Amino acid sequence: MLPFARVAIIGLGLIGSSIARAVRQEMPTVRLSGHDADPAVRARATAIDLLHDIADTPGAAVLDADLVILCVPVGAMASVAEQIAADLPADAIVSDVGSSKAGIAAALAAALPGQTVVPAHPVAGTENSGPDAGFATLFHGRWCILTPAGDADPAAVMRVSTFWEKLGADIEIMDARHHDLVLAVTSHLPHLIAYTIVGTASDLEEVTQGEVIKYSAGGFRDFTRIAASDPTMWRDVFLSNKEAVLEMLQRFSEDLTALQRAIRWGDGDALFDLFTRTRAIRRSIIEQGQDDARTDFGRSHD
Amino acid sequence: MLPFARVAIIGLGLIGSSIARAVRQEMPTVRLSGHDADPAVRARATAIDLLHDIADTPGAAVLDADLVILCVPVGAMASVAEQIAADLPADAIVSDVGSSKAGIAAALAAALPGQTVVPAHPVAGTENSGPDAGFATLFHGRWCILTPAGDADPAAVMRVSTFWEKLGADIEIMDARHHDLVLAVTSHLPHLIAYTIVGTASDLEEVTQGEVIKYSAGGFRDFTRIAASDPTMWRDVFLSNKEAVLEMLQRFSEDLTALQRAIRWGDGDALFDLFTRTRAIRRSIIEQGQDDARTDFGRSHD
Repeated sequence: MLPFARVAIIGLGLIGSSIARAVRQEMPTVRLSGHDADPAVRARATAIDLLHDIADTPGAAVLDADLVILCVPVGAMASVAEQIAADLPADAIVSDVGSSKAGIAAALAAALPGQTVVPAHPVAGTENSGPDAGFATLFHGRWCILTPAGDADPAAVMRVSTFWEKLGADIEIMDARHHDLVLAVTSHLPHLIAYTIVGTASDLEEVTQGEVIKYSAGGFRDFTRIAASDPTMWRDVFLSNKEAVLEMLQRFSEDLTALQRAIRWGDGDALFDLFTRTRAIRRSIIEQGQDDARTDFGRSHD
Repeated sequence: MLPFARVAIIGLGLIGSSIARAVRQEMPTVRLSGHDADPAVRARATAIDLLHDIADTPGAAVLDADLVILCVPVGAMASVAEQIAADLPADAIVSDVGSSKAGIAAALAAALPGQTVVPAHPVAGTENSGPDAGFATLFHGRWCILTPAGDADPAAVMRVSTFWEKLGADIEIMDARHHDLVLAVTSHLPHLIAYTIVGTASDLEEVTQGEVIKYSAGGFRDFTRIAASDPTMWRDVFLSNKEAVLEMLQRFSEDLTALQRAIRWGDGDALFDLFTRTRAIRRSIIEQGQDDARTDFGRSHD
């Protein structure tokens, strides 16, 4: 039995369009409607037949939905919620896919009083953006974290869980604040660091940008992938999860200072100890199926 | 015509064993000898028939070589050079594959007075170590940087260039000090940052190591790959290229502080501007064939 019959997707970028494709594949009888604020994206979504109905307004997209998923940048969630409020069926469940959760939960509760809201965060993505970047298997084997409020309807949480399981995800239920702390370290800080180092490398005087690009296979290129992620999405993530990100950044800076000191004073044992310890983490990630087990992420070496 | 007839490889890890495999494939008439300080590695190299002769000492491995390539950690270069000095044929060319060059050049010149030395750095690798980690195509399409001294014999430089071209690499000649600055930003700083963030993430109290591993697909897992690189090799790189690494680290820290400030004060425009700029670098790297053009490094998404 399907958890929902009519799903509305607001925001048709990488995640929204991946959900649409996955629903078409895994739950082909579900009716899909949706909207994107960008007319060019709506036109493209129409051209590739992403949904059954592409509406000109968010409100028109949700008119008869039983699940509405907001797939817009975190900073746009409140505004989109306000735009759908008048048209939303009373029994529709509202969810989202935002990378920070406490702020969104508050914004959705304020904009949609009385509505059943089950926030979600599928921990999955690529460096690409837009409706063409999505694909049906994006959520396979990835975790989808639900952060329902303490008084949330268990039946609604169950339905959203089942929906994501059908898209191939594993489900975890978590407190929104704890989610924001966990993701600050596993996702937000890595993106911030990657953006920073790519910026640093492109601003040097002694080393040209051409040299940085040419010799990037020494390690730098790894960071450029996540530093190519959607700028609007990530700006909003950092602003909305400010406290947790700043806390993790503080920890990172302290550890970096300690390592800097070890290099300056030639403390090879301190370096060796850390470098040995970090190897084990990689092994665990592979063992738990959270990364490609092939060497070098499976990059081709022909 | 082949640039060398008898090649000795000292150090049979990822790079040394990849050179051996590539030589066997591309220059099958070349006689390969070699040595590794670790008896277990020598035994394994013998078992997989990596070389024609595996000697019990570095000196015995180089006795009749016309090219000797030192593939040991940077900190072991001087000692290995001293160990081969007495047995080295007078006309043999000595090269290496170290990730920092100015210090090695000085160490080799001191240990091998009068010998022709052409230092090299193939900018290629994976997160794996040891004789089984190597493969023949590792250097395909990668840059190999040669850093000969100003008074180096041009014919010797040409022969080493030809050797690396036959292994599939593109050649660049560079001053050793400039090399060390360029690689500090394209390779050493990224590794240092990756090691640090993986250490930070595994030392938190509020977020468990299990959670870090579980939700690593949010970005963190990318950093764990290079943080799984060989600890001895990387300890030595940081200690030997101390000045350039500390300079790049200083730049990075300044930029990170600026970004931290932008987050704290909610300066979304500053974040958005940087995040937009960094996208272009990724595109250039792909266009120049220095990374896999496929989404997500080509990771499988089944």
